[in-house]
Amino acid sequence: MQDHEKKVFDTEDLLQMETRYRASFINSLGGFKSVILVGTQNKQKETNLAIFNSFIHIGANPALCAFIVRPDVSPRHTLENILETGFYTINHLNESIYKNAHQTSARYPREISEFDAVKLKTSYLDDFFAPFVAESEVKLGCEFQQRIDIELNGTSLIIGKIVKIEVPEKCIQTDGFIDIELAGSLTVSGLDSYHKTERLSRLSYAKPDKWPTEI
Amino acid sequence: MQDHEKKVFDTEDLLQMETRYRASFINSLGGFKSVILVGTQNKQKETNLAIFNSFIHIGANPALCAFIVRPDVSPRHTLENILETGFYTINHLNESIYKNAHQTSARYPREISEFDAVKLKTSYLDDFFAPFVAESEVKLGCEFQQRIDIELNGTSLIIGKIVKIEVPEKCIQTDGFIDIELAGSLTVSGLDSYHKTERLSRLSYAKPDKWPTEI
Repeated sequence: MQDHEKKVFDTEDLLQMETRYRASFINSLGGFKSVILVGTQNKQKETNLAIFNSFIHIGANPALCAFIVRPDVSPRHTLENILETGFYTINHLNESIYKNAHQTSARYPREISEFDAVKLKTSYLDDFFAPFVAESEVKLGCEFQQRIDIELNGTSLIIGKIVKIEVPEKCIQTDGFIDIELAGSLTVSGLDSYHKTERLSRLSYAKPDKWPTEI
Repeated sequence: MQDHEKKVFDTEDLLQMETRYRASFINSLGGFKSVILVGTQNKQKETNLAIFNSFIHIGANPALCAFIVRPDVSPRHTLENILETGFYTINHLNESIYKNAHQTSARYPREISEFDAVKLKTSYLDDFFAPFVAESEVKLGCEFQQRIDIELNGTSLIIGKIVKIEVPEKCIQTDGFIDIELAGSLTVSGLDSYHKTERLSRLSYAKPDKWPTEI
């Protein structure tokens, strides 16, 4: 990829793009993203499932993670359930369920559970309140911690504490690393492009006086 | 991956993990992540380059993105330069530079530029103040917008507006989607595992009355 033509865009070019073109364009720029299904239910135990591609690690101790919601648009049921009950699940995608997962982004009416609509099964772990996706290989149970509103564009960062984890035993390595490629987890680019992965290598902890080695 | 053993962890298990084990474990859980090099320079034009794996899309109009910094630890020079000058660059990794990129996480003293230390070249685009990574195929120039401190663990979310973009022309598709797999962009899992990708498919915009199709 070294001898091709490059194209440069600036703010003015972005403003002139058609809305959907710009959404696809800007969403592609940030690189490959974490893609997860967020499972919730309200106090009446009506379940909800929604796909998000803006999940980030915030810290390991306490174990904090976050994702971005847009309260002004679908899927707002997720946010309502989280605020009502305080609990939600994070479920990784794999090749056998990514189309089902993508389909949760359709705007189903409130009385329809996306679990049913997209043909994914709920599962429950110990006494954790929110529903997990049975077909997911890596599952996290989160306890809501904080909502931070981002006034620049009306989105919110939803921060949770990871309190329950289910992973395939064979994916856990001796140093704590979990091999999510072995678990078949996927990544997304843009709004709708799903990818599996192929490891290049793990690299050693970086120190100023030596080049990283493969571990 | 359906008939293997699953292992379940809860808060108590996390608390009992050794610090580095837990960091590796929790960092693996969020799925594949965006991995980028952030390029900055101070007013004296001393350059800095640092790798981050917590980059997220915030919105398309205005084009906003964000990443998490830990002000209490390295690489704090990035944050200082952003606050001092208001500008920074986001540069995708590819297979030919991922080891160099990883090496930027070593704790170099302030007077050494990571560009020099890890053997990556600076490049400048139009009159944009901050340095890009010449070897990167996808480059974004950002203008600092807001710092949101996350009191739960002392991290900060740094929000920027994308004002300059350079991408390989052949990666731009007719609907605005940018094929970053074709550009060779990588993804990361955990703290140190680098992966290339293989597209399964792009899926059509989801509607309640029809199953998504490959596009």
